[in-house]
Amino acid sequence: MSERPPRMDLEQLRTMLHIAPFHQWLGLDIAELTDEALILEMPWRDEIVSNPMIGSAHGGILSALIDLTGLYTINALGGSARATSDMRVDFHRPATSGPLRAIGRVVKLGKQISVAETRIEDAEGRLLASGRGAYVG
Amino acid sequence: MSERPPRMDLEQLRTMLHIAPFHQWLGLDIAELTDEALILEMPWRDEIVSNPMIGSAHGGILSALIDLTGLYTINALGGSARATSDMRVDFHRPATSGPLRAIGRVVKLGKQISVAETRIEDAEGRLLASGRGAYVG
Amino acid sequence: MSERPPRMDLEQLRTMLHIAPFHQWLGLDIAELTDEALILEMPWRDEIVSNPMIGSAHGGILSALIDLTGLYTINALGGSARATSDMRVDFHRPATSGPLRAIGRVVKLGKQISVAETRIEDAEGRLLASGRGAYVG
Amino acid sequence: MSERPPRMDLEQLRTMLHIAPFHQWLGLDIAELTDEALILEMPWRDEIVSNPMIGSAHGGILSALIDLTGLYTINALGGSARATSDMRVDFHRPATSGPLRAIGRVVKLGKQISVAETRIEDAEGRLLASGRGAYVG
Repeated sequence: MSERPPRMDLEQLRTMLHIAPFHQWLGLDIAELTDEALILEMPWRDEIVSNPMIGSAHGGILSALIDLTGLYTINALGGSARATSDMRVDFHRPATSGPLRAIGRVVKLGKQISVAETRIEDAEGRLLASGRGAYVG
Repeated sequence: MSERPPRMDLEQLRTMLHIAPFHQWLGLDIAELTDEALILEMPWRDEIVSNPMIGSAHGGILSALIDLTGLYTINALGGSARATSDMRVDFHRPATSGPLRAIGRVVKLGKQISVAETRIEDAEGRLLASGRGAYVG
Repeated sequence: MSERPPRMDLEQLRTMLHIAPFHQWLGLDIAELTDEALILEMPWRDEIVSNPMIGSAHGGILSALIDLTGLYTINALGGSARATSDMRVDFHRPATSGPLRAIGRVVKLGKQISVAETRIEDAEGRLLASGRGAYVG
Repeated sequence: MSERPPRMDLEQLRTMLHIAPFHQWLGLDIAELTDEALILEMPWRDEIVSNPMIGSAHGGILSALIDLTGLYTINALGGSARATSDMRVDFHRPATSGPLRAIGRVVKLGKQISVAETRIEDAEGRLLASGRGAYVG
């Protein structure tokens, strides 16, 4: 995909990302956009905790990250994603501190449906969750 | 499954549900527990909006509901679910007002892994999202 | 959905089902079509075995059943499914004898994408596998 | 993962792969095992066709490949996978000729559950299907 230039620059993407009140609440920002990946970053906030004994983030938060990162990845890397059609998430390890990094990559840019994969890592680069979404263009 | 009595009563389940700060933030409550289904309810709050043009809830919020409702369904209906292993969510229609109802049903109670299905409906009973989670016991 | 009459009768559906050489190889037949479900049946054949120690059917065979039953369910019950977009399968218990029954139900009939759920049962009605597919119309 | 040597050599893996009658029917062989990927190859056979108009392989065959390649990938690259717990498959493009190549990579080696991703490509390297399985050890 290196010959396909990203459709949007970082500022456009950041503006779009911040339109969503939920993205603002999550404190999302764009860390990096390369020819192959879009990397978002999210700080910790105490309201996202699921299990207060170990202070781990709710799976729904990790799922939200995988959902939205894939959608922005498709749009940033030459495809068109208006909405998520469906999604799969695998949870690998509790997320207990921030910032969380979400690394999205294109699996397939399609006319009707595009697919992206996203990995969520902690600050030490450990894999916390991963998954893929199918997006309608 | 009608011969298998629910393991927990409503009050125990409600207490467990509210331990999670994220569940409190979502404003979750238990609406009903029958022999076949656990029904949770969630009010609207403006921070969950994804697309402010149509005022629709973020897919990550619906995913969180599907994830957690399945886990509590397994535990409420005779199984054991400590954590979500993985999850699939299908998005059918934008969620634009509350309360949202999440109806969880057991697919399979297993020794290692249990599976539950959840439907998210709006106040008019329209299907907004549905999915299934695999939970480790 | 009881007010929506099935679009195809059993003979049309059977003819369509048998066009696929792989369906013929599997020995598939339509057992029943109601307003709410399409039930297919598949006999055993020794080539489908994965683990010869226990004589269990390959997961790919159960996946094929879930994939195709969902597609025919959508078409039989008033929707339009040309191809599978994606699919999830949960494996619950080894399938060690035939016939296998695949029971498909509509989750959502959509304009672009429809979703169906399928359960695979053995002759005693035990749940062997279940899953859902998203189909493009 | 480059410091973790593959647990099995190619001959052991090939012997295991061929124990399954269904794998023999599919004509599967191991093309390559590196530190990062296991690559299987499958010839064409006419019984796998789904749509005889375009001569495309059945989605269930691609699903079988994704299921089994992931399981052997986990076992070949230092993990333990006894059975598939669940699986997701995305179908990107009709498969109309062989041989098909299935490239499996580890997402996560876990104590209870491991996850692998598999891509199916045609002889020209075009992506036909992709997906991921969760495997119990």
